[in-house]
Order: sequence, then C-alpha cells, then structure tokens
Amino acid sequence: MSASLPPQYSTIDSMSNTSKIGICLGVAAAAVGAAGVFAAYQFFKSDRPRSGSLLADPDNHLAEEEVLQGHEVFRHDRQTKAVMMANATKFLDLMNTRRSIRFYSKDDVPMDIIMAAVRTACTAPSGAHLQPWTFVIVHNQKAKDKIRDVVEREEQLNYDRRMRRSWVNDVAPMAFQVAKPYLSEAPYLIVMMKQSHRVDPTTGNRQEHYYVEQSCGIAAGMLICALHNAGLVTLTSTPMGAESAIRNILNRPSNEKVYLLMPVGYPSEDATVPKRTSANRRRAEAETIVVV
Amino acid sequence: MSASLPPQYSTIDSMSNTSKIGICLGVAAAAVGAAGVFAAYQFFKSDRPRSGSLLADPDNHLAEEEVLQGHEVFRHDRQTKAVMMANATKFLDLMNTRRSIRFYSKDDVPMDIIMAAVRTACTAPSGAHLQPWTFVIVHNQKAKDKIRDVVEREEQLNYDRRMRRSWVNDVAPMAFQVAKPYLSEAPYLIVMMKQSHRVDPTTGNRQEHYYVEQSCGIAAGMLICALHNAGLVTLTSTPMGAESAIRNILNRPSNEKVYLLMPVGYPSEDATVPKRTSANRRRAEAETIVVV
Repeated sequence: MSASLPPQYSTIDSMSNTSKIGICLGVAAAAVGAAGVFAAYQFFKSDRPRSGSLLADPDNHLAEEEVLQGHEVFRHDRQTKAVMMANATKFLDLMNTRRSIRFYSKDDVPMDIIMAAVRTACTAPSGAHLQPWTFVIVHNQKAKDKIRDVVEREEQLNYDRRMRRSWVNDVAPMAFQVAKPYLSEAPYLIVMMKQSHRVDPTTGNRQEHYYVEQSCGIAAGMLICALHNAGLVTLTSTPMGAESAIRNILNRPSNEKVYLLMPVGYPSEDATVPKRTSANRRRAEAETIVVV
Repeated sequence: MSASLPPQYSTIDSMSNTSKIGICLGVAAAAVGAAGVFAAYQFFKSDRPRSGSLLADPDNHLAEEEVLQGHEVFRHDRQTKAVMMANATKFLDLMNTRRSIRFYSKDDVPMDIIMAAVRTACTAPSGAHLQPWTFVIVHNQKAKDKIRDVVEREEQLNYDRRMRRSWVNDVAPMAFQVAKPYLSEAPYLIVMMKQSHRVDPTTGNRQEHYYVEQSCGIAAGMLICALHNAGLVTLTSTPMGAESAIRNILNRPSNEKVYLLMPVGYPSEDATVPKRTSANRRRAEAETIVVV
C-alpha cells in the first residue's frame, strides 16, 4: 500500500505555505501543478519502489512533497561489528534495568526533559505517516487530581461489575487497591491519545488513519525507552472505563481515544518493585524468540 | 486490573521447577501451597498496591512468584538534571536520524546483534506480563524468498481488488511497485507475531491475553530503537493479505498473527530515502504534543 496522503492533506499544506508567502495563490498553484507533473513523470520512469507498507516513515509520507522533492542519498556510517555489538549490549543492559513504578516522588522534573522524550516518541514510523497520536503532557495538579478521581471511581466499578467472576476470584487474594496515588503524585501524567481518524481543520472532512494501534504502540515503546534513558520512571497503565471522562477533562476531540495513561517522574525513596525471578526472565526467550 | 496470572500458568511453572528438582511432587506442592498461604496473608496486610494496570512489567507479572517472594526496594540513582537533559537530547538526536529503508546490502550481520535487539524488545511491559508476542528471526534464504513471493503476490491482489477505488486513484501517479526486493535481500527478516491468546502446553487450555495490540506495539517500538542504536536499518512493513501464508511458511500456530514484517540489515550503498521537509517535522509537534 501507499505512503501517499489523501488529496485534502496536500491542500492543507499548500494553503499554509501560500498564506505564509502571501503572494498570488493562482500563480503558486500553477507552479506547484507544473512541478508536480514534471516530478510525476520522473517518478514514473524511476525504478525506486515508492511504497511497500502503510507503516511508513516521516520521510515516506508526504506524497506530494516526495513527488516535488524526490529521493536523496541515505548517508550511513557502517560501524565495526565490535562497536555495533557493544552498543547493542549496552542498550539491552540499560533497558533491562527498567521497572514499572507505582511509587513516585513529588519532586518536579524539568519540562524540557519530558518534551525531549515525547519528541523522541514522535520520531516513530506510522501508517502513511499520519502520526495518529496526541501526547497530552499533564503537569497541572488539578487536572491530575481529576484524572485520578475518575480512574479510581471506574476501577471500583471494574471490580464490582465489569470483570468476569473468574478473574475477580483469581485476583481476590492479591489484596487489590483501587487507590492510585501515583496518578496525582507524579509530577507528570502523559496521556497518550490515539486518533481513530483526523478531521481536516479547513474542510471539516474526515481523513482516514491506518494501522493506528501499531503506530501508537511503536511510539509508546519509543517513549518508554526515552524516559528510561533520561533517568525517569513510568508505568504503562490502561484506565479501563475512564477513557471518555479523561478525554473530557483534557478537552480533547471525539476522534481521540485514551491509549495509555503514564505517570512520569522520579521514584519515591521507599519505592518497591516485585522481586524478579530468573525463571521469569528465561521464559521470555525460550518461548518468544524463534530462529528460522 | 491485575498483574496476576490465571491459575493454569502457575501450574506450568511449578511443573517445570519440580521436574527439574526431580523430587517428590507431592512434597513440593505442599511446600509451595504452605508458602503461598503465608505469603498471601502477608500480602493482604500490606499496603503496597499490587496492581493498577494490565500493562504490567516483567516484575509485576508472576503473581504466584510475587506472593512467594514479595517486593524489594527499587534502587535508583537520581542523576543531575544536566546529565538527564544531556542523555535525553542525545537519544532524541540519535532517533531523529532513523529512516525507514527499502534498499539493503546483502552483507550478513552477526546473529548476536540481532538477538540483543530482540531481547531488548522483550523487556517491554505487557498486559498482565503475558508477553503476547513471538519474534521469528528469519535468516534462511529459502524462507525469505518464500515470504517475499507471497507478499508480492498478495500486494498485486491488493492493488487489483482490495483497495478502495479512491485510494487506487490517489496513488496511481506514484508508480507503485509490487516488487519488494528488500524482503529477500536483507540478511534478516524479523517477523513479529502477536499471540491473540496462549495455549497451555500441558493442559491444552486457552489462556487469555490482554492488551495485545499495545503490548506488541510497545515491544516493536523498543525493537526499532535497539536496531537503530546498534547501527542497523529496518522497515516496519505490514504485509496485508499475506499474513496466514507467512504463518504457514514459518510453521507458527494459529494463535499467532503476523503483526509486523521487518527486513533488517545494512543499507545498500545506493540506498535513498525521500527528502525530509521542515514543514513535515514541525507539523508533528504543533499538532500532536499538548501541554496541560
């Protein structure tokens, strides 16, 4: 499938450019049109595959810009195998130290560090590069308190009504707590929204999104790597039942659905995690990695 | 919801342990049971929240082990803000250089580097830590050729029949190529499978999985980070229509579905990528990051 965008998207971009330039729209449109025809011709005679997956890259997405600007050489410095192996091992070791944390210090974190992590997530490839996500970085204490309140209320309902009885029985000995202090104590809550579709702000037209789940998941994985690499801790939580209430608190449009709710900060001094077992770590490899 | 596992899972683990120990099964089971009752009591009187999300961590997952072994202090060395910011910026800069690549060198890559990247992906949190993924690392040339063949055949069908006419028209000027040489030329194809559920090998019982899409997406995001960090390139492709054929080629069970098909290797010397535009890069931030 294609990395190209529906026609209305190119309209948005052309509009913003022409309005910036502030010159005769007709002349600009004619120039773009002529360039497009020429580039399409060059494209057509080229043997470069232009697509192959909907999960395209930033680079692969803007079809009309691709036509206008073409490909460029990809610069890549191949490292020695020893360096590659050292880098791969170091990153594995780093990521292996990550834990999901439920106990947060109230100490604040500079917004710049959070922004760098979210920007890292935004480098993710996405379906037709439509970037079907919104990262809402919640720092405001009242908003965090409201979100915690709705999540805790819904969690109580989950236990009381929504779960299958077998599940409730399974977890009964676990001394569940509905309370989720981490949602209001961590300095940041990152609410990752997935956009089921996009609405063109100019025309109001609905613009389709592709592979939304994969795209958002990949971006979330990159966010988790970036936060951990920066020395912060988080928890990938899924606020079952509270999604629409959170969307309303954050005043997000109806095409956005809560994908993950992630407290972010430093661990509290008395933070604990469940002990790891070697059996657990081995299991992953034996059952989930297969070489053909 | 809980990070605990359905009861049959603990059975698997107990079985493997007891068989390893090779001592009277009844005695071991009684000991585990007694320890479980004691630990459950301790758990019950503890004020540590035991759960809060299905997207739990390696640490949070093995409920029975958690009960037996409890929590431990989380060790965390808080870095200076300058160091955190430097790390965050360096990682962002690194990830910003990533591109989706369709042109691969046939040069081989040491399996150890691939394994380290996949192991990094396996550190991802997952729903109830059930790790609902299988990474099939395809190195065998015949298997790669077969996969390329079915993907190309299905891609032709996609264009001829499956796509909406509007989409086909939109992409017509793009000189689509059905050919996907990267699938057989790259030294590795990583086929990431998502497990819709798990089947207990001992009892044959179906074991539910939770938040499979998010879990696999997060792991995929970590894999992409790890491959890029190791100096390799990849492409996150979605082989529409070829999923079941690929599963058959790889002889994977029916509870596994192809999630992503990723060629991995070095770029070819003449590899090109679409030119980036600053408009494209800016758009992501303006529209997809919101601070509250």
